[in-house]
Parts: sequence; C-alpha cells; structure tokens
Amino acid sequence: MKYPPAIQDLINKLSELPSVGPKTAERYAFYLLRQNEEKLKGLSEAISALKEKTTICRSCQAIAASNPCQICADQNRRAGILCVVENTQDLAAIEATKQFDGRYFVLGGLINTINEIQPADLNIDKLIKKIKTEKIQEIILALNFTIEGETTALYLNKLLKNYLKITRLAKGLPAGSDLEYADELTLSSALKNRGEMK
Amino acid sequence: MKYPPAIQDLINKLSELPSVGPKTAERYAFYLLRQNEEKLKGLSEAISALKEKTTICRSCQAIAASNPCQICADQNRRAGILCVVENTQDLAAIEATKQFDGRYFVLGGLINTINEIQPADLNIDKLIKKIKTEKIQEIILALNFTIEGETTALYLNKLLKNYLKITRLAKGLPAGSDLEYADELTLSSALKNRGEMK
Repeated sequence: MKYPPAIQDLINKLSELPSVGPKTAERYAFYLLRQNEEKLKGLSEAISALKEKTTICRSCQAIAASNPCQICADQNRRAGILCVVENTQDLAAIEATKQFDGRYFVLGGLINTINEIQPADLNIDKLIKKIKTEKIQEIILALNFTIEGETTALYLNKLLKNYLKITRLAKGLPAGSDLEYADELTLSSALKNRGEMK
Repeated sequence: MKYPPAIQDLINKLSELPSVGPKTAERYAFYLLRQNEEKLKGLSEAISALKEKTTICRSCQAIAASNPCQICADQNRRAGILCVVENTQDLAAIEATKQFDGRYFVLGGLINTINEIQPADLNIDKLIKKIKTEKIQEIILALNFTIEGETTALYLNKLLKNYLKITRLAKGLPAGSDLEYADELTLSSALKNRGEMK
C-alpha cells in the first residue's frame, strides 16, 4: 500500500471515473485533503444525494428534478415536434442554444454493434408510443455524427419515415473552423448544403 | 440552470478539482448517475472520512494513517539520514523505488517568489529541530528540478551546509528517453555526471 488506507481507498474509487488514471486520482485525493471539512462534507453529500434528488422524466426519459420534467410540463413549448437525442447532456447542449421551442426525447444510447447495444436496448418503444399519443408530426434527429449516431439515425428513419417528417442537424463546418483542416466528408457536406447569403 | 439542481450542484463542486473544467465535471457527474446507490455511498463516505482517518506525522510531517507514521516508527530504518521532499506524494514516489532505507522529511511546499511562499511558510524550523535532536548526518534533497525546487535546494544548502552533508538526486537523462529530444541543461548534466560502466 503506497498511501494510508483512507487515501488509497479514495484514490481507487476516483480512478473509476471516466478517463481518470491512478495519477489523476492521486492529484484529486491530495487536493481534497487540502480542503476544509465543510467542503469535503458538501461534495460527499452532493454525491450521495445524486440519485435521491433526480428522477427519469416519464414523458421524455431525461434525467430531471421532477416528473414530468420542466420542459415536458411547460405548456408554452410547441407541441408536435420532438428533438431526439442520445442522452440528457445532449438535451442540455441543444437547450442551451435557446433555438428550439419543442420538446425532447432521450434515446438512452445509440445502436452500437461492437458493444452489442441493439435497438431494443434503447427507448425506441417509448418513442413510438409518444409519437402516437402526442400526435408528433416531426422529429429532429440530433444524434452524433459518428458511426453509432449514423446507424441509429438510419434505423429510426427506416422505422418511422412513413409516419412523420424526419429531419437531421445540418452537417457542415463548425464555427471558427479552418477550411484547410476540414475532412473531406465534412467539406463535401458543407458544399452540398450551402446556403444563400442574406 | 442547465441541469436539475442536484446534478448542477455536483458539477459545480467537481469543477473545483485540479484541472477539471465544467465539461469534465459533467462527464464525472453523469458517470456517477449511472452507478448504483452502493457505489455512490462508498465514494461519498471515502471523501467524508478522508480527514478523520488521516493525520500529519509529528516526526516527518507526512500525511499518514498513524502518528508517528509507519516509516518514522520503523526501527529497522537507517537513522542519521533524511530524504527531504516537497510533499507526501513525492515521499510515496521515492518509497516505491524501495532503494532508500532512511527516513523522510516533508517540507510542505517549495519556496516560490511569485506565489509568495517564503521559507517561513515551509516546515524548515521543524527540519532543523529534527536534524539536531536526531543527530542527522546527511540530508538528501529530493526536490523537483524546477525553479522552485532549485531555489529551495539552494536555500537549504546555504542554511545547513556547515552542519551536515547535503546531497541531491542525480540530474540526467530519464530511462527510455531519446537523446535527440533532451534539453541542453539535462544533457550537459548527464555528460558532467557520467558514470563508469560496470
């Protein structure tokens, strides 16, 4: 044992965080050791309260403070249009743009043949039910432009295209990007989807 | 507020960890959300127990489980030689080599004129007291080869060189390193301190 048990135990636990190795966990643990009792108690309680104080919205499947969540409960939101996202983080990212006034639906993952995540593992049944009961006319597929995202988008398009309008986020050059370093796929998409200047 | 309060609160608290920004904190928080209650309780308790279950060794100033620490209490350790380090992590790094059978002393920092860390802010008084009472004959300065480490080493050398032998870690090329990419300072040290092949 390299460190006193209490420290080593915390290092081991922190090493389980995504992309945190033993060295980083060590830095975190020794940083925490330098904090006062009150701060440690605050962090400790925030972690233990995490599950108690959050829930899954029964309507959109997002992680939320209330059920239904604030967005689903908001009567000012446009009905009939759903933005389909992978997870709650992606929902928050789109919500932060303040450009979308419809509601969301969280798939809870993407189809991934390597990790054996099948369509049945996602909330697709719930999505279909929601589309039917809420008479959704358009879904926006706001999924990553990765193999998994594209696979899931193709799957959903095939499944639902006869019932409602399906749109996707635009593929193109990101803001502040340098044309010289753009890959061919992005550049050809940006060329194909070019827009007229106003 | 982007996320439910319980999540946002945890994200804010995790963002205070060293070199963790809001995005990384978000990843950690959503990773924790996917864990079971038991795991969260374990981490929460490890954090809150951190201070209770650790102490500062009165003899070497290291963070330890007991007072005096295991190393200071170990009668098989060679007396009369002290390895002076910046902090407990550095102590653990040297201890992991299993090449040193003396005892340690933790300075608790390095002299840093920019951040206004003066010699008086370090455990130098305690070091002098320890040297006197334990009749130390040699101290090994195992400090970073940074401006702060070099400053502290020069300061301690000036302060103590008339009373005992002072040595430093060897400066040279690290194991597995490429000569081509070594900086001039390291390379000239390695040349100057070259050893005979056995």
